[in-house]
Amino acid sequence: MASDQLSSTLFALADPTRRGILARLATGDATVQELAEPYEMSLAAVSKHLKVLETAGLISSGREAQWRPRHLEAGPLRDVFEWLESYQRFWNRSLDSLAEHLKVMQKQKRKSKDRAN
Amino acid sequence: MASDQLSSTLFALADPTRRGILARLATGDATVQELAEPYEMSLAAVSKHLKVLETAGLISSGREAQWRPRHLEAGPLRDVFEWLESYQRFWNRSLDSLAEHLKVMQKQKRKSKDRAN
Repeated sequence: MASDQLSSTLFALADPTRRGILARLATGDATVQELAEPYEMSLAAVSKHLKVLETAGLISSGREAQWRPRHLEAGPLRDVFEWLESYQRFWNRSLDSLAEHLKVMQKQKRKSKDRAN
Repeated sequence: MASDQLSSTLFALADPTRRGILARLATGDATVQELAEPYEMSLAAVSKHLKVLETAGLISSGREAQWRPRHLEAGPLRDVFEWLESYQRFWNRSLDSLAEHLKVMQKQKRKSKDRAN
């Protein structure tokens, strides 16, 4: 089910370590050892995070290479991005009203300046 | 911490019922009763989901109105969107190579057609 895929992706992303791993993979493929380096956690703990990312389809691992380097898979990220696009009008609307508010404030400032002169 | 805010938002979004509630609120403010209507769950269960959304800052509730209608807050969605934007080049790259692949296939098809004629 598409909805479950999205839930699984969002859940995988809801953790700073897992987002850190994706950020590292965005600079190039890496082995579990390399991915574990910045973290003060066991290889087993890092492997658990990798499993969650793999289940969500956010990473894949080379089958042939001895060290099975992990690779970033951007497809699920694109799905989240596309889902969010339908909400974009809401934050654009907030920016519009902020801009409107600033315009009114500038006008008022200009008026009080004119009055002072 | 910004990273925790993002985790809390992504966790809140990692559930189809909670995303359904946001989709409903995108059409206008609604009371807990109205939000619960499409779901076969207790008001208490729906309230729990609302609490998670509220903690993540994804919804707010009117304080004065008797029924405290819930309101969509798009700020955290924008934060996720902006975080995803840094990965956009990865799926654009995949689309580029797909387009390249299709071009090669079309060429091959044309060639074999020419040969057939």
